[in-house]
Amino acid sequence: MKITLITVFLIFQFIMAQETPLKLMPYPGQVNLKDGNFRLNEQFIVSTNGSINERLNFNTTRFLRRLSGRTGLFFPQDYITSKKPEQNAHLVINVARQGKLELGEDEAYEIVVSPENIKISAETDFGAKNALETLLQLLEADKDGYYFPAVEIKDKPRFKWRGLLIDAGRHFMPVDVIKRNLDGMSAVKMNVLHWHLSEDQGFRVESRVYPKLHELGSDGKYYTQEQIKDIVAYAAMLGIRVVPEFDVPGHVTSWLTAYPELASVPGPYSIERKFGVFVPALNPAQEFTYTFLDNFFGEMVTLFPDKFFHIGGDEVWRGDEHQDAHWNINKDIVAFKKQHNFKDNSALQNYFNQRVEKILEKYDRVMIGWDEILHDSMPENIVIQSWRGKEAMIKAAKRGVRSLLSNGYYIDLIYPAKDHYLNDPLPDDVDLTDDQKQMILGGEATMWAEYISPETIDSRVWPRTAAIAERFWSPGYIKDVNDMYRRLEYISYQLEELGLTHIKNPEMMMRRLLQNQSIAPLKTFTSVVEPLKGYQRGQKRIYTTFSPLTRVVDIATPDARVAREFNDSVDAFLLQPDKETAQKLEKQLNCWQENHKKLSELSLEAPAINEILPLSESLSKLAGQALVAVKILNSEDIHNTLKPDSELFQNARTSYGQVELAVVTSIEKLIKAASALK
Amino acid sequence: MKITLITVFLIFQFIMAQETPLKLMPYPGQVNLKDGNFRLNEQFIVSTNGSINERLNFNTTRFLRRLSGRTGLFFPQDYITSKKPEQNAHLVINVARQGKLELGEDEAYEIVVSPENIKISAETDFGAKNALETLLQLLEADKDGYYFPAVEIKDKPRFKWRGLLIDAGRHFMPVDVIKRNLDGMSAVKMNVLHWHLSEDQGFRVESRVYPKLHELGSDGKYYTQEQIKDIVAYAAMLGIRVVPEFDVPGHVTSWLTAYPELASVPGPYSIERKFGVFVPALNPAQEFTYTFLDNFFGEMVTLFPDKFFHIGGDEVWRGDEHQDAHWNINKDIVAFKKQHNFKDNSALQNYFNQRVEKILEKYDRVMIGWDEILHDSMPENIVIQSWRGKEAMIKAAKRGVRSLLSNGYYIDLIYPAKDHYLNDPLPDDVDLTDDQKQMILGGEATMWAEYISPETIDSRVWPRTAAIAERFWSPGYIKDVNDMYRRLEYISYQLEELGLTHIKNPEMMMRRLLQNQSIAPLKTFTSVVEPLKGYQRGQKRIYTTFSPLTRVVDIATPDARVAREFNDSVDAFLLQPDKETAQKLEKQLNCWQENHKKLSELSLEAPAINEILPLSESLSKLAGQALVAVKILNSEDIHNTLKPDSELFQNARTSYGQVELAVVTSIEKLIKAASALK
Repeated sequence: MKITLITVFLIFQFIMAQETPLKLMPYPGQVNLKDGNFRLNEQFIVSTNGSINERLNFNTTRFLRRLSGRTGLFFPQDYITSKKPEQNAHLVINVARQGKLELGEDEAYEIVVSPENIKISAETDFGAKNALETLLQLLEADKDGYYFPAVEIKDKPRFKWRGLLIDAGRHFMPVDVIKRNLDGMSAVKMNVLHWHLSEDQGFRVESRVYPKLHELGSDGKYYTQEQIKDIVAYAAMLGIRVVPEFDVPGHVTSWLTAYPELASVPGPYSIERKFGVFVPALNPAQEFTYTFLDNFFGEMVTLFPDKFFHIGGDEVWRGDEHQDAHWNINKDIVAFKKQHNFKDNSALQNYFNQRVEKILEKYDRVMIGWDEILHDSMPENIVIQSWRGKEAMIKAAKRGVRSLLSNGYYIDLIYPAKDHYLNDPLPDDVDLTDDQKQMILGGEATMWAEYISPETIDSRVWPRTAAIAERFWSPGYIKDVNDMYRRLEYISYQLEELGLTHIKNPEMMMRRLLQNQSIAPLKTFTSVVEPLKGYQRGQKRIYTTFSPLTRVVDIATPDARVAREFNDSVDAFLLQPDKETAQKLEKQLNCWQENHKKLSELSLEAPAINEILPLSESLSKLAGQALVAVKILNSEDIHNTLKPDSELFQNARTSYGQVELAVVTSIEKLIKAASALK
Repeated sequence: MKITLITVFLIFQFIMAQETPLKLMPYPGQVNLKDGNFRLNEQFIVSTNGSINERLNFNTTRFLRRLSGRTGLFFPQDYITSKKPEQNAHLVINVARQGKLELGEDEAYEIVVSPENIKISAETDFGAKNALETLLQLLEADKDGYYFPAVEIKDKPRFKWRGLLIDAGRHFMPVDVIKRNLDGMSAVKMNVLHWHLSEDQGFRVESRVYPKLHELGSDGKYYTQEQIKDIVAYAAMLGIRVVPEFDVPGHVTSWLTAYPELASVPGPYSIERKFGVFVPALNPAQEFTYTFLDNFFGEMVTLFPDKFFHIGGDEVWRGDEHQDAHWNINKDIVAFKKQHNFKDNSALQNYFNQRVEKILEKYDRVMIGWDEILHDSMPENIVIQSWRGKEAMIKAAKRGVRSLLSNGYYIDLIYPAKDHYLNDPLPDDVDLTDDQKQMILGGEATMWAEYISPETIDSRVWPRTAAIAERFWSPGYIKDVNDMYRRLEYISYQLEELGLTHIKNPEMMMRRLLQNQSIAPLKTFTSVVEPLKGYQRGQKRIYTTFSPLTRVVDIATPDARVAREFNDSVDAFLLQPDKETAQKLEKQLNCWQENHKKLSELSLEAPAINEILPLSESLSKLAGQALVAVKILNSEDIHNTLKPDSELFQNARTSYGQVELAVVTSIEKLIKAASALK
């Protein structure tokens, strides 16, 4: 019975994806398109009904302003502040009760659009907010004006925890950056901001109990308590929980800069400027450390009302093989381990974690940590965040410990959206019982900040995170990559209206780098290159926290769209050469062939782009050969022959300025296919 | 002697403007270009010397990061925090003393760039900050890399008060908007933010003494006291004084919404949603009003340390001919006037102003007000801000009262930069003695907020305000409009690196309006139209505070560059027709002729642009006729004749969607010239 239902859904979804032009993301669980449209005009009236509350009115007002902004229509209502329903409204929002901002709260909704009116119903105002976001994505237009297609939608999240981690430690991210990303999260129905607030490179929160933390540990770049409260309150309006992370006992150089007495070996320490895993660690063998954490966490829980509290716990330089590990150097710590019969530093960290967990329990908080903290002796009421693989997650679930998946969602590593999209926290073949599956709360995309600034963060987070949001929200069977990319393009520009800068900042950065010369040739180039993936960027050049993040590598974005489309066209062409695709390919290849000359000319006044000219030259040469290949394959130039130039491919695969071409393999396929024809 | 010196300078400046490619704005008083260049590399070291202080280090660090951002160079220094000079520095900054943030402080500087090193010297760190901004504008590049041309610059401001007014009352402007505009101001050496903080449409500051002001008067959109302090402190780091304006006794609907007992006639009042001059006014005849203002101003002076405090005083609906004027309705006020022998409401307002001035004096503040407050009985130690003309300013100066000029700098009215640029606070022919001239402190550009949002404000302020900044800073004889426009273009894109959105947001707005179709045709169109000037926009359509500011009129910017260049080309061509100019004109005209079809097609999915299609069609038709005209004038088509179509011109001069074409007159000139040839 169950299988049959799923099959029906699958077929239904398949039909939908093929036949409807809907641009929804995350795609709802049930979508039933009807005939007709609800047409918008300047008499459009909205009414909030049922359990009307401030948050519902806030989100409804916001919806109205965004709809007005897109359409240019002057609507009659200003702030929706009423406590009672409007008469004769065209959009009626019914909410049964005010939502509680806690894990597992009801976020489902229904929308019925008919030619006469629109009805939204939801158990909570969070559901209503989600419905309004879906409705904004439903907006269509024709020559007569704007409309919503008649449709019935029933929708609810697959996972309870749909998060984005923002690392404000390595590079500080000001309040407006956080807020606009919260807006983006809300637009794609994410519900947790995991805020990484302390790092070797900076301590980012004002502490009144231990003020040296922010005074000496932040270079003046920290959030005041008022700002924290403001952001937490803003997130709450959007149905987003804020989970703070204070990473201990490693990643603490900034803490030790302020309070060296916390350290495992004597200071002084200074704020770390480089990136990597560093040796400083809190001293787990002294009571002072726990008193400090007790007082400090006691202060922080007044700022962060969420039930969950993240203590990091990752990458402690503790390996017993490391002679420089501070826990092996400090004699008191060594004695402490012996006294407690800890067989290794891992056991010592486990002791530390248990102490910290007790403190958090006192403050009515559930401890979360990275997968290193999973240990048999830890209580079950913790949450594990898996970053090194899915193993810890599975292991935890089998023990009845809840977990989140972040492995596979490391958006800082510049992998394409489809990789993240196809990474399912609970794939069909997972070896877990239904009860154990309940332990998998969801997942989080992680925006680590080695190579991002406030100027570039959005172009790393968006639009890829929308695809991840769909993975966390939508039924698992919705996984058509092409359809995801089709919809992602619409969502991407819609996210701009929230102030997100992922499209506009790269263009600004090109103007800066080119000293305001025409950016077209650089745009052509950056649209087919990608920053180095994985951890390669830092291996090619040493970066510090104050290195410029304004170069071509920072302008280039993951998932280069033009490259993806070209690669798809090449595959189609190789399968079945046709004139139309040939022309499309030739147009593109001509553009690349000619681009190098233009870029070289620009470089005369913009030497900052010199570093990528070899790559631009390779692209030009590759394009030249590929043009011949297309002609051969398309039987237009049957007398020509082509011999693959392996040196050219090798050069084209070399990174320059920490970027790499994203079309070499396709071009190589073309050339090899052509040269294989005799 | 004096005249001779000025003549020498004039010639000198003329030569400079002609012979140097320098892109400085405001243009320095003395610039002496030398041979050679100082070439930048990754060993570049900066040293702060002399009276090293936190602000100097802040601005030096900022300089270093911006230089690194533009060039992609990795410099060795992180935060400049040292209290002592660096050895072997390439850029040495010498400061005699820490500046005091007060009117008339020394802001002068000298820069000497030689091939070996760069030396900056200044009396105060404000001067050094100005020097660093000039140095950033000096940056040049060639194929070998980045360099500063060898040069000697001596520079100081002409006026002491160089301000920008930002109206956060009519539309609230969040902290990040204010900060990035402060950055822009600093880049062009402005030194006063005049912050208009209360209006009929909103009261924007948290008051702890009278909390209903922000609670009931702001729709939740106000600055907290911490935010105010943060902004004031940030401005101080940039050498910018912050002068708050709380406009009384008119423009107070938001105050009265919170405290109707302040009003001249009984409430209740509600926050104004429309724009205009409104009747509500404080009751000047009751002591409560003065007690209230005393307490409130007493609170505000703790937030705003500047010596100057603006009380507005403009546009009180007080005319004795107005039967609805509240001061004529309230019997107590009428009796009060009689009792005090006030001959009219103007006298009553003067009484009010005197009482307010006494309060401010108690708090050691100098009162500023709009020109309405100038009255013989006011003490001399006030400052008048002239907005209705220069008369009040001149009159004040003759009385020994200081003043500022804002008339002619109303950037909300969308006039071209050149109009503001040529508006001199102290033109050569001004009828004032040298002593009286000292009373003219400077001026302020005013960014009133009826038709701006956080999304669009930057494109109204910038880049035009840079030209105004030059008027306030540079010697008066620097007034070559063409050279100003040449330099303005560079300054404009450089301002982007500060986060200003004047270039990137219009493009984003086009994507939104076109639903992400190709924006090129709309860009072509918006580059030759301008929003209606003066007060016409509000006359064509009724706007409220919640009307969308996302339409073509909001995308279009003042001073349409393409239009200006076209108009210049037409003038040149009519003076002396030549083939090259003809080709340039034809290319442009062809583009316009064909653009309408493209725009019409886009409108099928973007009906928000329907409103401007008639104008696009007129442009297309005009361009078609102008193409014939160019051929005739260029003697390529001597047999053709052309008859001006006055209906076409009339249509083309009609505004649609509150925008108008900026090229009609030029095209008309072309066509008329061609038709005059027989």
